[in-house]
Amino acid sequence: MDSINIKKLAKQLNLSTSTISRAFRGSSDINKATKERVLSLANELNYEPNHHASNLREKKSKTIAVIVPEIANNFFSQAINGIEKVAREKGYHILIYLTDDDFEKETSFISNLQGGRVDGIIMSVSGETKNHDYLNKLKKKKIPLVFFDRVYEDIDTAKVTSNDYESSFSATEHLIKSGCQRIAYLVVNKSHSIGKMRMSGYKDALIAHHIEFKDDLIIDCSNDLQKNQEILKQTLLELKPDGIFASVERLALATYQVCQDLNIKIPDELKVISFSSLEIASLLNPSLSTITQPALEMGTAAAGLLFQAIESDDNKNVNDQIVCKSEIIARKSSSMT
Amino acid sequence: MDSINIKKLAKQLNLSTSTISRAFRGSSDINKATKERVLSLANELNYEPNHHASNLREKKSKTIAVIVPEIANNFFSQAINGIEKVAREKGYHILIYLTDDDFEKETSFISNLQGGRVDGIIMSVSGETKNHDYLNKLKKKKIPLVFFDRVYEDIDTAKVTSNDYESSFSATEHLIKSGCQRIAYLVVNKSHSIGKMRMSGYKDALIAHHIEFKDDLIIDCSNDLQKNQEILKQTLLELKPDGIFASVERLALATYQVCQDLNIKIPDELKVISFSSLEIASLLNPSLSTITQPALEMGTAAAGLLFQAIESDDNKNVNDQIVCKSEIIARKSSSMT
Repeated sequence: MDSINIKKLAKQLNLSTSTISRAFRGSSDINKATKERVLSLANELNYEPNHHASNLREKKSKTIAVIVPEIANNFFSQAINGIEKVAREKGYHILIYLTDDDFEKETSFISNLQGGRVDGIIMSVSGETKNHDYLNKLKKKKIPLVFFDRVYEDIDTAKVTSNDYESSFSATEHLIKSGCQRIAYLVVNKSHSIGKMRMSGYKDALIAHHIEFKDDLIIDCSNDLQKNQEILKQTLLELKPDGIFASVERLALATYQVCQDLNIKIPDELKVISFSSLEIASLLNPSLSTITQPALEMGTAAAGLLFQAIESDDNKNVNDQIVCKSEIIARKSSSMT
Repeated sequence: MDSINIKKLAKQLNLSTSTISRAFRGSSDINKATKERVLSLANELNYEPNHHASNLREKKSKTIAVIVPEIANNFFSQAINGIEKVAREKGYHILIYLTDDDFEKETSFISNLQGGRVDGIIMSVSGETKNHDYLNKLKKKKIPLVFFDRVYEDIDTAKVTSNDYESSFSATEHLIKSGCQRIAYLVVNKSHSIGKMRMSGYKDALIAHHIEFKDDLIIDCSNDLQKNQEILKQTLLELKPDGIFASVERLALATYQVCQDLNIKIPDELKVISFSSLEIASLLNPSLSTITQPALEMGTAAAGLLFQAIESDDNKNVNDQIVCKSEIIARKSSSMT
């Protein structure tokens, strides 16, 4: 057992050492008969691979990075659960990085990750309008990259998104059918890929229903609760919308809080629908109508694409685009009154 | 600039190379005058430390691990935000590990972390009744360890907890003063340090108010939403409690869901109070009374203790115990009717 090692196995079977490694890893890119020959001889010789040495030899860190804007957000925490499950099955660790929506942090993380610390990266991006050249270096280093939810359209890599345009169109249409004529669109960052897609859906639904699109009903919010409450207080008092379409969960919750303070009744005086993965949306007062992205499914799909690339012979990026469908769940907050 | 390096600086100043490194890192365990001498000469010679080489020389990974049961939980995601902020200021990455409350995973993570992958570990533990010898190996490897929230009492290391006994006593007393006589205590794991502390607070408050403690009102729940709903449905229908003290947020939310299904009115027919860091507790229907742990503060404190150990000369564990105070916020769910 001591005297046998991976080189000897390779020699005896007339295979390369990397084929032997792949057989032990259960890689999918090796034919079944070969795999069985390797495992059967190893078994006969009572040989078990040393995983640590195997990582070194293959220069694998057995770690992937997940870069997200935040984790105190139900969408991201559920997506991470999906990623984590796939990673664990593959024997991988995950490193979670939080950008707080700060583009500088994103570039610094990516530059730190080029030295072999991770075998691949799953990212929901931060700075849409910026130069994304730093990501092309990953390709040269053969570190696969998968975007999920928030993507850079100009970077040619695997992407997992949801049908943001269609679901935003339907959500806006739902508010119109409930009687809304002045629908405000709440957004944190208009330049994000999803911010843009969701706004187009909103805009086109208004047009389809012959409602004039008004620029002052696009409300720029922030990630700061206090600031959002001030912005929303002003919006509700001065612009008097009769509907709110929130592109991010926290903006709907801030709206609820402001309505509580100002004694504005939802849905009687204001109807609300929001993108949200909040599991307790039905327990809110009133229950919140949501556009619910399949967060767990999106995380699982992103991890699937990443491991497809990691397990390929030359870490070739899979440039697949997966689009998952969100579900619109109408509850009291947007009901006809 | 090329020809000058850390060794030459050390020689010229008659200091050790590790003192020079610590001066560059801004370590707190080096005296101010020495630090200034080092930085001033380095500045004069136009020398900037190579951080990567410095990490290698000091055998630092510039990474810490945070091991938690889950992140789709407001307490942990807020605590991680606190840890992340401190780590970022120190130039550290954080690795987040999720145990799903599985003790086997915890031991496997710890054993994986012994090879220098991280410089320190912050953990909220999983398996109270088990043998914790595997943690003593960390001491031998000089990897500092800080427990937060859920701790092992038998392991001698730094701990950050909240005043679980006192706040549970007060929360139970609050329900009694609101008129409850049959208060059920909902718990996920009675053997956890916090599960035990919270139950003692509950029990002693009953005794102080001359209410008999009944074992059948201690309700063992799980981490599975479906199972919890079944358990709670049975509890509410068969045991007919008039008050619920939930030791974990998700059990209060499951109670709300079951009450909605069974048409049991909170607070008229059942009063509820729960440990919870849910920022939108006031938006629930009815607003939820909470015992709110200072999650961000606890994360920050845990990271503070860890870096104190990492930056000490021999990575000596700081055995400090920090106890943070929770706040009881009475809302509609527990009000007198």
